[in-house]
Amino acid sequence: MLGKCITNVRNSVPLVHNITNYVTVNDVANVLLACGGSPIMSDEPEDVEDITSICGGLNINIGTLNKRTIEGMFVAGKKANEIGTVTLLDPVGAGASKLRTETAVKLMDELKFDVIRGNISEIKTLALGSGTTKGVDADVADAVTDDNLDAAVKFVKEFAKKSGSVVAITGAIDLVADGDRCFVIRNGRPEMGKITGTGCQLSGMMTAFVVANRDSVLEAAAAAVCTMGLAGEIAWSRMQDGDGNATYRNRIIDAIYNMDEETLDKGAKYELR
Amino acid sequence: MLGKCITNVRNSVPLVHNITNYVTVNDVANVLLACGGSPIMSDEPEDVEDITSICGGLNINIGTLNKRTIEGMFVAGKKANEIGTVTLLDPVGAGASKLRTETAVKLMDELKFDVIRGNISEIKTLALGSGTTKGVDADVADAVTDDNLDAAVKFVKEFAKKSGSVVAITGAIDLVADGDRCFVIRNGRPEMGKITGTGCQLSGMMTAFVVANRDSVLEAAAAAVCTMGLAGEIAWSRMQDGDGNATYRNRIIDAIYNMDEETLDKGAKYELR
Amino acid sequence: MLGKCITNVRNSVPLVHNITNYVTVNDVANVLLACGGSPIMSDEPEDVEDITSICGGLNINIGTLNKRTIEGMFVAGKKANEIGTVTLLDPVGAGASKLRTETAVKLMDELKFDVIRGNISEIKTLALGSGTTKGVDADVADAVTDDNLDAAVKFVKEFAKKSGSVVAITGAIDLVADGDRCFVIRNGRPEMGKITGTGCQLSGMMTAFVVANRDSVLEAAAAAVCTMGLAGEIAWSRMQDGDGNATYRNRIIDAIYNMDEETLDKGAKYELR
Repeated sequence: MLGKCITNVRNSVPLVHNITNYVTVNDVANVLLACGGSPIMSDEPEDVEDITSICGGLNINIGTLNKRTIEGMFVAGKKANEIGTVTLLDPVGAGASKLRTETAVKLMDELKFDVIRGNISEIKTLALGSGTTKGVDADVADAVTDDNLDAAVKFVKEFAKKSGSVVAITGAIDLVADGDRCFVIRNGRPEMGKITGTGCQLSGMMTAFVVANRDSVLEAAAAAVCTMGLAGEIAWSRMQDGDGNATYRNRIIDAIYNMDEETLDKGAKYELR
Repeated sequence: MLGKCITNVRNSVPLVHNITNYVTVNDVANVLLACGGSPIMSDEPEDVEDITSICGGLNINIGTLNKRTIEGMFVAGKKANEIGTVTLLDPVGAGASKLRTETAVKLMDELKFDVIRGNISEIKTLALGSGTTKGVDADVADAVTDDNLDAAVKFVKEFAKKSGSVVAITGAIDLVADGDRCFVIRNGRPEMGKITGTGCQLSGMMTAFVVANRDSVLEAAAAAVCTMGLAGEIAWSRMQDGDGNATYRNRIIDAIYNMDEETLDKGAKYELR
Repeated sequence: MLGKCITNVRNSVPLVHNITNYVTVNDVANVLLACGGSPIMSDEPEDVEDITSICGGLNINIGTLNKRTIEGMFVAGKKANEIGTVTLLDPVGAGASKLRTETAVKLMDELKFDVIRGNISEIKTLALGSGTTKGVDADVADAVTDDNLDAAVKFVKEFAKKSGSVVAITGAIDLVADGDRCFVIRNGRPEMGKITGTGCQLSGMMTAFVVANRDSVLEAAAAAVCTMGLAGEIAWSRMQDGDGNATYRNRIIDAIYNMDEETLDKGAKYELR
């Protein structure tokens, strides 16, 4: 079922506007190309409206935010909401600094996001901080495990419901939920944590998946998570003696480049809760 | 004939100042090193004059422009023109936003560029928008093909004449022209479009080629185009099962690193019109 | 002896705040992960205090400085000094422009750095320019060779003493010194100069090494230099026909990823002067 989502990306070549950090931006661009999308980067407030207007999706990642690019995020986001562009928020480092937390919360409060993707601690920060999510029980552990899975699933569904966004929490076990359903995904490998920006890459790719599958945002977001995780598994199987995280990074992007519907359908490991 | 151009780069190690986007900047730097040049990046208006002054060439790429870096482009460009540094303009995204179009046109109007390199739609935008190029017939198709080659060659020569720059339009068929002569180049592979920034990389490398071959700017620009395309062919021949765009990116830079005069002379596929 | 330093990094996973250039930032992040550390990047003045406060080390690299990020460097540096975070300065391009020279000198004058790492010409610029280092004899050659080694060792020790920092001068022969002792290191390969940012990568990694080995800053800095150079040697031994600087870049990071105490102890080539 999820495999169809990547075919739709490849057939429609969604153009994605990324306002993203300068650390992992090149990998985000190459992953978008690998999965069948097309990337544009622009963060200047005077430029972003025009760029968002020609794109199907807007990926906002606050990883190396500054005052100018924060302004660009709001300007682009408002335009995107106005014209119906798909929007995704990646709240990198929310909780680690006041500026990041406040920016992420304000983005959530002032803009409508189709998808929010982060790790558990970032998403908890949003759930606690945002006015729109008051009442969400964020008292879940700092890592999703089999032991706390029930509570985590409850948390992510509740946050999705209150925020009105599909929410993806990625980690050893990934959760992708709307208010009713939650994909619990077990693709991926722990070594992916030794590569900078696999989360950022996933956010870029997820935006393209949602643009190409607007009628099934939840499935599209889950398909992107499975694609990334499965690519990590395939790439790992190709590692040779002496290879390390730099080669692994390349092989993961390569595996996304070669991913097709059948491989994804066979390799995706998830259950619906 | 063109092969000599890369030998001249390797022998003189031209230092190139790049004001370029943060998406592909690392690849631009590594490609400059691969071809025998040496890169410096600087975009702060207070820093760029000094940096341009110690360089042989200035590569201006507007890919992730902002107000500060736009100011840096004009300051650096004026200094470069004043002291005779080689200048290249890569108008990334001209036509896609007002700010990009206006910036590219203003750069063209206020500065003298030895070379302008872009895709057909960017170059058409410049031809239509710039006061210095009024009267150029930009009514050519959006891709250069064998069917519209005559019109495209006429267009690029005319634009080169009016602008006073060597103009390189890259795509499936590449055109590199001054007012009189046009190299029609058929190196490269379509899969290069699945890597972010091959155009940016080419602009950086082309600047080095022109610095090292100032008496034959047209040939130098054409040689850079052939080097990039031929590297794409060589790299593709080294691809293995499971490889994708990340590995292809690396292999292209590797192929430039290993490019020599003889390989380039043998592999360059072009005709002069 | 030095091998123990990397084990300490792997065991403590030091978090390093990097204010670094956008050219090589992705490689810096991946090298930090490869050696066992963890990277965060942030350069907005309003963000950097919070980020530095949760990190063990602060790596300041002026490679693509601008007025905003310069302010961020001072704000972060002051906070780091206040709370005892490890600090490293990489004065990229000091001597090449007035802004870079003045910024590097001012950073040295106003902040206390545990380590300063650069090439000989950058370090000479600092030695000449900084008020705190008046009286240092910077009349050494522009490359450290066996012929001028005595003078270079004297220079680096003297500069280390006056500045109160461990000083690392990297090149064909690397020198790492405090006021009394100097490691003369002969790891590495000349081909590493054909990869952009091996120096920046080293600075990031060195910060992590010092954080994990605070009681032996000199040994930690030397161990980082040996790790980088030895990784360059191991990576070179894995190069195949047709490989070039892009593949070499990846293999070096891979070799750091696979580096362990025993390999480092066996492969480190140094003498103490």
